[in-house]
Amino acid sequence: MKRGFGSDNHSGISPEVLQAIAAANVEHALAYGDDEYCCRVEELFKEYFGRQAKVYFVFNGTGANVLNIDIMCRSHHAVVCADTAHINVDECGAPQRIVGCKLLTVHTPDGKLTPELVKTQLHGFGFEHHSQPKAISITQSTELGTLYTLGEIRALADLAHEYNMYLHMDGARLANAAVALNCTFKEMTTDCGVDCLSFGGTKNGLMMGESVVLLNPLLDDGVKYRRKQMSQLCSKMRFVAVQFEAYLKDELWRRNAEHSNHMAHLLYEGLKDVPQVKVMYPVQVNSVFAQLPHDAWHKLLDDYFFYDWDESNNVVRWMCSFDTTEDDIHHFVDAIKKVVSR
Amino acid sequence: MKRGFGSDNHSGISPEVLQAIAAANVEHALAYGDDEYCCRVEELFKEYFGRQAKVYFVFNGTGANVLNIDIMCRSHHAVVCADTAHINVDECGAPQRIVGCKLLTVHTPDGKLTPELVKTQLHGFGFEHHSQPKAISITQSTELGTLYTLGEIRALADLAHEYNMYLHMDGARLANAAVALNCTFKEMTTDCGVDCLSFGGTKNGLMMGESVVLLNPLLDDGVKYRRKQMSQLCSKMRFVAVQFEAYLKDELWRRNAEHSNHMAHLLYEGLKDVPQVKVMYPVQVNSVFAQLPHDAWHKLLDDYFFYDWDESNNVVRWMCSFDTTEDDIHHFVDAIKKVVSR
Amino acid sequence: MKRGFGSDNHSGISPEVLQAIAAANVEHALAYGDDEYCCRVEELFKEYFGRQAKVYFVFNGTGANVLNIDIMCRSHHAVVCADTAHINVDECGAPQRIVGCKLLTVHTPDGKLTPELVKTQLHGFGFEHHSQPKAISITQSTELGTLYTLGEIRALADLAHEYNMYLHMDGARLANAAVALNCTFKEMTTDCGVDCLSFGGTKNGLMMGESVVLLNPLLDDGVKYRRKQMSQLCSKMRFVAVQFEAYLKDELWRRNAEHSNHMAHLLYEGLKDVPQVKVMYPVQVNSVFAQLPHDAWHKLLDDYFFYDWDESNNVVRWMCSFDTTEDDIHHFVDAIKKVVSR
Amino acid sequence: MKRGFGSDNHSGISPEVLQAIAAANVEHALAYGDDEYCCRVEELFKEYFGRQAKVYFVFNGTGANVLNIDIMCRSHHAVVCADTAHINVDECGAPQRIVGCKLLTVHTPDGKLTPELVKTQLHGFGFEHHSQPKAISITQSTELGTLYTLGEIRALADLAHEYNMYLHMDGARLANAAVALNCTFKEMTTDCGVDCLSFGGTKNGLMMGESVVLLNPLLDDGVKYRRKQMSQLCSKMRFVAVQFEAYLKDELWRRNAEHSNHMAHLLYEGLKDVPQVKVMYPVQVNSVFAQLPHDAWHKLLDDYFFYDWDESNNVVRWMCSFDTTEDDIHHFVDAIKKVVSR
Repeated sequence: MKRGFGSDNHSGISPEVLQAIAAANVEHALAYGDDEYCCRVEELFKEYFGRQAKVYFVFNGTGANVLNIDIMCRSHHAVVCADTAHINVDECGAPQRIVGCKLLTVHTPDGKLTPELVKTQLHGFGFEHHSQPKAISITQSTELGTLYTLGEIRALADLAHEYNMYLHMDGARLANAAVALNCTFKEMTTDCGVDCLSFGGTKNGLMMGESVVLLNPLLDDGVKYRRKQMSQLCSKMRFVAVQFEAYLKDELWRRNAEHSNHMAHLLYEGLKDVPQVKVMYPVQVNSVFAQLPHDAWHKLLDDYFFYDWDESNNVVRWMCSFDTTEDDIHHFVDAIKKVVSR
Repeated sequence: MKRGFGSDNHSGISPEVLQAIAAANVEHALAYGDDEYCCRVEELFKEYFGRQAKVYFVFNGTGANVLNIDIMCRSHHAVVCADTAHINVDECGAPQRIVGCKLLTVHTPDGKLTPELVKTQLHGFGFEHHSQPKAISITQSTELGTLYTLGEIRALADLAHEYNMYLHMDGARLANAAVALNCTFKEMTTDCGVDCLSFGGTKNGLMMGESVVLLNPLLDDGVKYRRKQMSQLCSKMRFVAVQFEAYLKDELWRRNAEHSNHMAHLLYEGLKDVPQVKVMYPVQVNSVFAQLPHDAWHKLLDDYFFYDWDESNNVVRWMCSFDTTEDDIHHFVDAIKKVVSR
Repeated sequence: MKRGFGSDNHSGISPEVLQAIAAANVEHALAYGDDEYCCRVEELFKEYFGRQAKVYFVFNGTGANVLNIDIMCRSHHAVVCADTAHINVDECGAPQRIVGCKLLTVHTPDGKLTPELVKTQLHGFGFEHHSQPKAISITQSTELGTLYTLGEIRALADLAHEYNMYLHMDGARLANAAVALNCTFKEMTTDCGVDCLSFGGTKNGLMMGESVVLLNPLLDDGVKYRRKQMSQLCSKMRFVAVQFEAYLKDELWRRNAEHSNHMAHLLYEGLKDVPQVKVMYPVQVNSVFAQLPHDAWHKLLDDYFFYDWDESNNVVRWMCSFDTTEDDIHHFVDAIKKVVSR
Repeated sequence: MKRGFGSDNHSGISPEVLQAIAAANVEHALAYGDDEYCCRVEELFKEYFGRQAKVYFVFNGTGANVLNIDIMCRSHHAVVCADTAHINVDECGAPQRIVGCKLLTVHTPDGKLTPELVKTQLHGFGFEHHSQPKAISITQSTELGTLYTLGEIRALADLAHEYNMYLHMDGARLANAAVALNCTFKEMTTDCGVDCLSFGGTKNGLMMGESVVLLNPLLDDGVKYRRKQMSQLCSKMRFVAVQFEAYLKDELWRRNAEHSNHMAHLLYEGLKDVPQVKVMYPVQVNSVFAQLPHDAWHKLLDDYFFYDWDESNNVVRWMCSFDTTEDDIHHFVDAIKKVVSR
């Protein structure tokens, strides 16, 4: 399938990552994370997120999110999140099934929670008929391609802690956010008071592998058993660890994210003056959400694969990837212009 | 870490498998299994297991086992298994947590269920206070390195079906079993009446990736949603699929399993006349369970990593892998002879 | 505590019900429902709801609702309900924990779903990332004291069935609804296409005891095991059964519900011309929701216990019970008039 | 049905209990336990079990056991219990479904755990593949009618605490045990180091209602929410509380248990010299387990209802109740003698 704009997980593996897997494919290693590779990469996470950080590798983003929720909450707790959050709309009810807790969803204009929006859900404490709010979950960058500033993250962490709650960050695209905000991972997480993080790499060049990063050490209780129960314990874990090593060591994450963010901006630039195309949200990372005539986007599907986002309003989503080229953008812009002008 | 006998998941990736991953790392592919690679490999599974077979790729063995149990059972059901079964002793209660059902365990002399042993658990049908037996789960080859004959499998399948139950096979080492029995996968599963299979590859040369293979088409109901809920849906699934393609296409599974089985037999041959070492079970696949003096096996740990199996009886487990060499065996036999003769 | 307007479960036991318990307290009876009393009352349910109806007695309303959801749904399913539904706001996440499924909530003006509102949630069918809508749950009468007409129920049942879904009715106050609509239980449930019902009595004069009534016989699969697992199987079940017998046999349900409905209307009549009190919803059954000045309702709490409903808007809920007297109403109206006129 | 020996829950309600329900049926009371009756009875529990004791009323024994397990364990934990334990064989897998944890069962000669038997399960601590032992659960009196001495309970509590585990007691028949051991409830529980108790009354004269009694205050965390989630929160809770008040206040529990224990001893006395009847366990409380010829016990079923206990060995269970009379015993002994002598 030719390169398109369907998703940043339609792309393959960054060459550096594949090379790291091959390089680790020597001799034997203890399974389940008790090997030197994992040990080395755990240290790298501490360099990136602070000494108190503890990483647990898992297989995928749903696994990371559900394990994090399980770490923060028991079943009588609730997680406050945006109604567009991946945990709410794209995980087939995994948090409900696996943790048994409730999600308290809030409608947002741009995929971002605010203290005011969260507070609408902060009631019923001590009332046994009501699921007890225990965590706030935000996605950085959001599912709509928008960003929380560091101050906004800090404000939500402060609110969470004021209510004896935790702040979780779904960082499936954390690299794209760090590049856009020109900050470190630590500045955006640990330093803002984030308690736990789903730190992803698959959407930015890894083959498969995500991670739960505990920034609040108090949360590190029984996690290894619960990861195992959730079928998220990898036997040949060195091959997940070295993917993250390749990702973090020489800032592959940055190069890939800078590139995909840049491609999205190129796409935006190419379209911003096309009257039939309305870009819906600020283009801050590697996605462009656009409204265009129904016939046009259906015609465009003849040549390019991508997802509708809000079918009833003719809004579609275009994702750029680490391997998107400038030529890809130019051809796509041309194709869009062509279908909308017919 | 040097090659040892700790586990068949201490070895790395078969070169053919790594090559297949690299070869698939071109262009874009749809995520979550809707790609041409998966389509192609699904066809390969049908060739191996019969036209009605349906494969669902998952991340690991626990994931495969738990999804299979979830497919067969609701929470008021019970699975009859050997007390040594991986689902009983090595999955941290994942079946109980994720499916909510009960395991009815049976003590066996050799890790193998028999109709007589299973029947001890087949009572209480229709009695609402009793978890209803709904599945029999066997491991082929077993956790003790023993094998079910085709006739024994068929007898258990017949028993299961007589009681309106299902037969599940945990085939984490199915290749080793097929080689030892000199039969095809289909002869050992579909043709014997097995309803569903956890088909593994990681212990025999894959990087990571296991599969649920439904042989009874009636079980194929809502599985994709439940795989997703269990965080077992891989985004870049082509990279799991092509591992299995490399494994199945040119019989890599057979070459690897023949080799590791052969290595275990060499090890057995080297030790069978050592009076201080008692081999506990027939060496049928790639493992040797041996009883040896306590001081001896602790001394041996200075040079080799391996697991005790039954510490109170001084029984240890030695696993051979696809990359174990004849030299490895000779050196290990020498080392064992040395420690037991001191 | 003097009789007030806090809840219709603040009242005690109807004398007829207590008498029935005493009358059944003779000799021995088989436990867990295998007794002649239960047998007799199951027949009575068939008379009320149709020959195909099957009743399962449980302990309380949450138990009835959760068992019904468990009967209709597996964990990858979703239930569409009003955001004010008891299952959403008053059961501490029991459906999520026990069934593991998702609730898809809809905001309504009056606690009532409509086909149009439900349809906003009917998408994502076949998409494995999305919890699959499988049931619609309505409350009759609603948590806001409003009523579905028979035609409205029928329309929701038709919609559900068109999508291969089920319609559940939470009938904690079904008697009040039947009286208000001047129809039979069967006309309001079975004849409208309701698939399963939580039929309550505790709020209308029973001591304790609710029931799951399956109207769609296809749902009657494995229910007894699942009731047991949920700790909803009563040992001395005759004492639940005879409460329902007293309730149904001579139409105690009707007398009690007519009375409490009438009391609520009296209350409404007494308040409708009080300018400081705004009644929020049509008074159709035994509750009055009213907005009144903040200081006034807080002052009123000195003498009467009742719950705020929407604190931020100064809306409170007043419930009438089977034992509320006309004098209670007159005194309460006087007290309200007094506090609002100060 | 005439009085028989099927179960101690085949009998009805003690007159004192029914009278207490009637006496509480006045005026209104707050629901869900926030009423004066519950407050009063909670105090009574403190008198019986010690000042630190905290009671949570629930509906039935399964509810009490499962809530207690949920209080002690998370899903990656395991409970060590006898293989004859009610939680293992008579609750349809409720602990597995609701708590998600594992039961580690031990075979016993007499239904009683010992430290030695428990220790066979105390391994794998810290090993993430293994469910972590966190609680020991014993039944007092046991399902086989046998008793733990105070010293035996203390020894198990000490063992539990040594391993950072908890000791749970299933006291469905605690009154029978206290009478037999001539000790107080507190001496048998709190003073022996029991951490939490399922304290039952239904088998000894209550209508319905059981309780979770926390003796270790550290366990009292979030319990009310979890009781609610499990559908074990009673709305008109006063009617559960006053049953326990009647039970505890004037030692009704003692009178009833003394009587049923005495009846079992009479039965034993009547049968001990009948050569065809072999009593299987010491008759310490209100049950007699007997082996008798297959044809004889089947013939006896023509006139009396009772359960087989171990069908393959022709062992049956006869339970005496608070309302069993001496005449009942004499007639039953005569009937047994008659069927075995034919």
